[in-house]
Amino acid sequence: MSDIARTPTPPYYAVIFTSVRTAVDEGYEETARNMIEQARVMGGFLGMESARDGLGITVSYWESLEAIRAWREAHAEAMRRGSEEWYETFTTRICRVERESARLPDSF
Amino acid sequence: MSDIARTPTPPYYAVIFTSVRTAVDEGYEETARNMIEQARVMGGFLGMESARDGLGITVSYWESLEAIRAWREAHAEAMRRGSEEWYETFTTRICRVERESARLPDSF
Repeated sequence: MSDIARTPTPPYYAVIFTSVRTAVDEGYEETARNMIEQARVMGGFLGMESARDGLGITVSYWESLEAIRAWREAHAEAMRRGSEEWYETFTTRICRVERESARLPDSF
Repeated sequence: MSDIARTPTPPYYAVIFTSVRTAVDEGYEETARNMIEQARVMGGFLGMESARDGLGITVSYWESLEAIRAWREAHAEAMRRGSEEWYETFTTRICRVERESARLPDSF
């Protein structure tokens, strides 16, 4: 299970990726894991949240539009495979987070 | 299963609600359904996407910050119950959607 991301005081940016998968699994898990691992070591990555029950929603958080662009450019091949093999339908939305409120455990 | 929302050309607004539930179910499904139904008849509502597998992510889309404010004010009691009874932890992020790309079936 994905955790709730701990993000800084806004403004920052979010990529909302909503998808419905195909039945094709080859390479999917490995590529998804790789994209998350690389995001974590790239500049400007703030966190990620993910859930799927039929519809999948993955939200990644970033310091800037430049950081999003760099991450997407580094994964152009993965996005091409996703489009052709793994996703039946999908939408990518790039957003500026304006406000945030939360109730999260202090001990996290 | 929730569908991918059909949203207009940006800019528009998104509310990303990420949560972990408690074990308390009383009133939850009814209230959640009611909030979605009321959103659909309120001005400025553009769509909603939802998935949960441990972590829950619900994203609602709106024409304006004013429409979001009206919806949240109409559901202040539901949000209070959510905070006290149904959600262990949660985060609400209000965002301005700047760009969108999609591959969706034409026939939708």
